[in-house]
Amino acid sequence: MKKIGVALLGLGTVGGGTYRILKNNHDSIMKNDGIDIEIRHIIERDKEKAVALGADLSIVSTDINDVVNDKDTHIVAEFFGGIEPAKSFLTKCLLAGKSIVTANKEMFSKSWVELEAAAKKGHAGLYFEASCVGGVPIIRTLTESMQGNVIQSLMGIVNGTTNFILSKMADEGKEYGDVLKEAQRLGYAEANPTADVDGFDSMYKLSILSSLAFRKKVPISQIHREGISGVDKADIEYGKQLGYTLKLLAIAKNRDGKIEARVHPAFVPSDHPIAGVKGSFNAVHIVGDNVGDIMLYGRGAGDLPTGSAIVSDIVFAACQSKPKYAPFKNVDNVSTKDFTDNYLCRYYLRMTVADQSGVMAKITSAFGKNNISIASMKQMPSAGENATLIFLLHQTYEKDLNRALEALKKLDCVNSVNAVIRVEE
Amino acid sequence: MKKIGVALLGLGTVGGGTYRILKNNHDSIMKNDGIDIEIRHIIERDKEKAVALGADLSIVSTDINDVVNDKDTHIVAEFFGGIEPAKSFLTKCLLAGKSIVTANKEMFSKSWVELEAAAKKGHAGLYFEASCVGGVPIIRTLTESMQGNVIQSLMGIVNGTTNFILSKMADEGKEYGDVLKEAQRLGYAEANPTADVDGFDSMYKLSILSSLAFRKKVPISQIHREGISGVDKADIEYGKQLGYTLKLLAIAKNRDGKIEARVHPAFVPSDHPIAGVKGSFNAVHIVGDNVGDIMLYGRGAGDLPTGSAIVSDIVFAACQSKPKYAPFKNVDNVSTKDFTDNYLCRYYLRMTVADQSGVMAKITSAFGKNNISIASMKQMPSAGENATLIFLLHQTYEKDLNRALEALKKLDCVNSVNAVIRVEE
Repeated sequence: MKKIGVALLGLGTVGGGTYRILKNNHDSIMKNDGIDIEIRHIIERDKEKAVALGADLSIVSTDINDVVNDKDTHIVAEFFGGIEPAKSFLTKCLLAGKSIVTANKEMFSKSWVELEAAAKKGHAGLYFEASCVGGVPIIRTLTESMQGNVIQSLMGIVNGTTNFILSKMADEGKEYGDVLKEAQRLGYAEANPTADVDGFDSMYKLSILSSLAFRKKVPISQIHREGISGVDKADIEYGKQLGYTLKLLAIAKNRDGKIEARVHPAFVPSDHPIAGVKGSFNAVHIVGDNVGDIMLYGRGAGDLPTGSAIVSDIVFAACQSKPKYAPFKNVDNVSTKDFTDNYLCRYYLRMTVADQSGVMAKITSAFGKNNISIASMKQMPSAGENATLIFLLHQTYEKDLNRALEALKKLDCVNSVNAVIRVEE
Repeated sequence: MKKIGVALLGLGTVGGGTYRILKNNHDSIMKNDGIDIEIRHIIERDKEKAVALGADLSIVSTDINDVVNDKDTHIVAEFFGGIEPAKSFLTKCLLAGKSIVTANKEMFSKSWVELEAAAKKGHAGLYFEASCVGGVPIIRTLTESMQGNVIQSLMGIVNGTTNFILSKMADEGKEYGDVLKEAQRLGYAEANPTADVDGFDSMYKLSILSSLAFRKKVPISQIHREGISGVDKADIEYGKQLGYTLKLLAIAKNRDGKIEARVHPAFVPSDHPIAGVKGSFNAVHIVGDNVGDIMLYGRGAGDLPTGSAIVSDIVFAACQSKPKYAPFKNVDNVSTKDFTDNYLCRYYLRMTVADQSGVMAKITSAFGKNNISIASMKQMPSAGENATLIFLLHQTYEKDLNRALEALKKLDCVNSVNAVIRVEE
């Protein structure tokens, strides 16, 4: 029986969930995987949290050196969140030869390079299944199951808060601000919701997932990011009528050897499997050149789902004969030439125009001059002298679209372009 | 660079797909995973198949000893299907220390015990990701990602032919026989469709998947099996009205330490993620005590999707420092005490009764006497002197249900019980 000593850094939601799983499932893990896991250290300032979990207070401290200097602690799981002290503590542990397991997407996406260097120096491994999409085994799938594929695209709902808000706006026809307040009251959104609703959380996860998918480091600086705070319930409703569902998507594509990576609200066809992912559930859809479409679905957050991913990583790490690193060479050698921001997309546009003859000719001419082809147009019922037009465009380069938008804004008959939303198929 | 010699046994659909992936993706596998894979032998009687793929004929033979005696062949991938000669050939290879990779669910589910014994003797490994649900990484998920869970249930659409037929019956209101013929014409069903439509294929896969889920060998002898040939389009339509979708499901549950495993058509709520899995797509839904619900979705068959799983296994096998075996001890020590056939289920019943007073009292009394509680009843519009009744029952033990059905058949007012379909939530 292999004995594995573990340290937990932090006893917040996921740290607490991990503690409970390691205790409750200790015997099943021993029976199934032949690993006897002992929690040897807990680094946590708030002793009350340890008391609430029934932890032995003699293993609780605030000094990371208690972990670093214990030769019987092999794996360190981190739940602090944020950059520091997580990064310094984990670096110390790696240099001391202890493998790390982390749920900290922000720190990991920003510090992968330095952590990997420390890991190699200390002959320790880096495991981060819990950093993306909670209990959904997306990291293991990308590293251990897609070897027979060149991955072409990855598209995910990787943030439960925003999916909860958009699902509720769609189902109940409510405005963003009202649903956000409700989500905050229910505990689905933080008091300061920026990390979720402005897409930062999705961006960190996309950086990690797309790096694994394309075997090339995709830094957050190369990811376009938009949040959902500007979403109007009118567009959700109009989209529904056209057969589309609005989601905050994290998208990465390999187009002719260049990577495009972006986080923004987007319409997907309502019969696409990802459109049916509701509430706080998450999903990631991958297209490989051989496997075609696959999708993984499940809970992207929460004490036990994310704790499940942490424990899976602890057992997985304990079973490796050699430490695992990033499955690509250029973790610290990113070239901007590998990326493009001239996205190729379909678009949904909503605009308010003067309800008079000749308008359509001017608008279609502005599209045509910028190489944009219109897939469909619909005039929405409206009162007064203005008309609301919805355009669905065929695939177009973002630069062409931006030029067309400039031209439209100069037209007297176009009062305003109210919404520009990408459409993914 | 690790050089890995591979032999392919058979160049049918999946064998051919694997050949193409190993050729087309050779360099990306070398770059991503550091494995240089060489196809050293092809065992295939029909040289035309090798010619069509552009294979070097000097490596094509019909003699398994060419593989067994080649010390530079490390991994043998099998695509024969059926029991023999697959089993004998693979046993020889295992005893000679060559790890095997197989897509052969029938042979593997029936011969796991013997293959595992040969593998241990020969210090070789067994890999079978491709045996279940094609390119969907369900085996790797069960073995490498669920370590922090005791799995409570597994429910899958694991056969594309039957899902294609049931989806088409539902969408187009057609009868089973007509859709089967269409599926045969399109190549989605075999000329002799028994293996698919009678649930054998799903049963083999369920045996493998549930063994991994519960870490206990679930032999096919312990799996209840019903196919879809008795499905009436009327029930699909009635179910739809009640908010249910009919699927051929492979289901395994751990109920109070006993396993129940069954393959049969079943209703699932139409908003359950598995209800949206259409056409030839497959999906497996798992519930773990900590991770909660997860689902994996993708193509369950086809040359490249299944070839993708084979190649993933080849690379995975090449990366192991020790050969992998079944993650449970009792592969050859199954006790019937570990299983139950007294399933606990909800049910949908359709019956034709005389349209006269007092009928309902007699029927509900037959249910009540057998501990069965009715969730809802609906009388369907009908002409003539008979009425069609649909009952949805609360959870009931199968033995109680069977007793109630016997009692119903003895009632004069019940002309016939036309359909008994399990309901899964």
